[in-house]
Amino acid sequence: VEAEFIEWLRDRVAASSAVLTGIGDDAAIIRLPGPLAVLTSDMLMDGVDFELESADMRRIGRKALAVNLSDVAAMACRPVAAVISLALPLSRARWYAEEFYAGLLPLAEKYSVAVAGGDTNTWNGPFVVNITLLGTPPQAGPALRSGGQVGDEILVTGEFGGSILGRHFDFEPRVAEAIWLREHEEVHAAIDVSDGLSLDLFRLAAASSCGAEIDLSQIPISAAAHELAEGSESSGSALDHALSDGEDFELVLAVEAESAARLVSSQPLSVPLTRIGRLVAEPGLWQISPGNPRAPLKPRGWEY
Amino acid sequence: VEAEFIEWLRDRVAASSAVLTGIGDDAAIIRLPGPLAVLTSDMLMDGVDFELESADMRRIGRKALAVNLSDVAAMACRPVAAVISLALPLSRARWYAEEFYAGLLPLAEKYSVAVAGGDTNTWNGPFVVNITLLGTPPQAGPALRSGGQVGDEILVTGEFGGSILGRHFDFEPRVAEAIWLREHEEVHAAIDVSDGLSLDLFRLAAASSCGAEIDLSQIPISAAAHELAEGSESSGSALDHALSDGEDFELVLAVEAESAARLVSSQPLSVPLTRIGRLVAEPGLWQISPGNPRAPLKPRGWEY
Repeated sequence: VEAEFIEWLRDRVAASSAVLTGIGDDAAIIRLPGPLAVLTSDMLMDGVDFELESADMRRIGRKALAVNLSDVAAMACRPVAAVISLALPLSRARWYAEEFYAGLLPLAEKYSVAVAGGDTNTWNGPFVVNITLLGTPPQAGPALRSGGQVGDEILVTGEFGGSILGRHFDFEPRVAEAIWLREHEEVHAAIDVSDGLSLDLFRLAAASSCGAEIDLSQIPISAAAHELAEGSESSGSALDHALSDGEDFELVLAVEAESAARLVSSQPLSVPLTRIGRLVAEPGLWQISPGNPRAPLKPRGWEY
Repeated sequence: VEAEFIEWLRDRVAASSAVLTGIGDDAAIIRLPGPLAVLTSDMLMDGVDFELESADMRRIGRKALAVNLSDVAAMACRPVAAVISLALPLSRARWYAEEFYAGLLPLAEKYSVAVAGGDTNTWNGPFVVNITLLGTPPQAGPALRSGGQVGDEILVTGEFGGSILGRHFDFEPRVAEAIWLREHEEVHAAIDVSDGLSLDLFRLAAASSCGAEIDLSQIPISAAAHELAEGSESSGSALDHALSDGEDFELVLAVEAESAARLVSSQPLSVPLTRIGRLVAEPGLWQISPGNPRAPLKPRGWEY
């Protein structure tokens, strides 16, 4: 499939001023705005991250890039170039590859990501994709998980829970939102919710050597979480789903208190920003609710 | 396996001044010497690139990095940081992962490559590894396949053929050699031999809008190529093996004529440099030998 497919792909990949030499040499040469690079990589496998038999290869192609975009957004960085490796089942290799890229390329174009190279293979095995995304930090520098400070308010974008009903494929990575926030307000730390809101918030707090206090009444719960909770196979309340379901790919941000107040009242983004708690000195995760004493909250989510 | 394994790995990965934030955040932050980055990625799969049942996982770990190092060497660039994704068979995931890294990490240290992150997965499927390597060009800039000029001499490092007998695992990527050559002499173009000497030389010539003329009497033939040719299952002469076997991972260089003469007589590297031909105006691959007219030579090697 390789030589002919590389031609096919090269014809479809938009030229990028950042990529000096892309598909077709031994490595891609990429010009960054400065000497700092961010690099992230995600591997998705048939039977683990999706079921190829029932999933649409275009949605898989979109998601494979989108999860990496979400990681770069979690650093408040700008994506620049991607390298894409595929292991394609022999029987339908070319068709799968074309469908994959038909799903991926519009998202790459939307976020100005150059497809700079990769490695396209066929085998007698299940479909595997690995994407590595190279990005560049904003003026204010990348947002780490570890930058949170006691007293920071915890803000989140969007709503949580029930992504399994479809949003885990069709989510919008919060790239533009993260960069805007980092450049305009005092965002100290950030993480994207890939494994579950309570678990990923716990990780941010731990990396920042803090604890986190969540007001459970303030969690933005998605319609999909309600739908799951009301279904016949319900495994918990809508709030449970919002706190523990994976693949929301929303941002959790630790923001200096005055910045946070300004953001919540002005709502400068096209997606809602909600204050759900704050970072505290005591390690661990804590729940608060009006009229009740503070109590420990177990971080839940997808653990490997 | 993930959380505990990440701890295990973090303890074993050497700190690097180039990696500001490595394993454990959403993305790695890497400081390059300048704004130019090179990026390459290779995926290796059980049953395609090796047979896990008969191969040693440490050799696979070493090779997975070495093939990427060879790609970066083919650009005459310096490797900086790697991100590593694994799909590990569930039954022996942790053991496989530790053996893999036991093979990889010494090579990473030798070439000052920081393991900056990745994605470690388990599944009910065959072993897959993808490594993406980030590098940085030398002062003279990266060496492309396309920089060759009519009249350039074609030099090669080392010997060719028969890598299947062991060298496809244990080869030394020509990183230091490529950088030294690019910085000290007029190296116009380079490629590493992954698919076969005649095929990869043909690719370099074609990318440079030239043809190439090879003196078949000058090809450095490895002992392994002779061994294969003399074996009972021989599929060609030792020269055939040298011209068409894949995975030699030696360099093919298009070098300005005076530089080439100087290099061949001074032999400045620890590996031999041999002149095997030159770039010519007529497209295609040509063989010459003393007393015979020039004749076309079919590029042979591993085509996908």
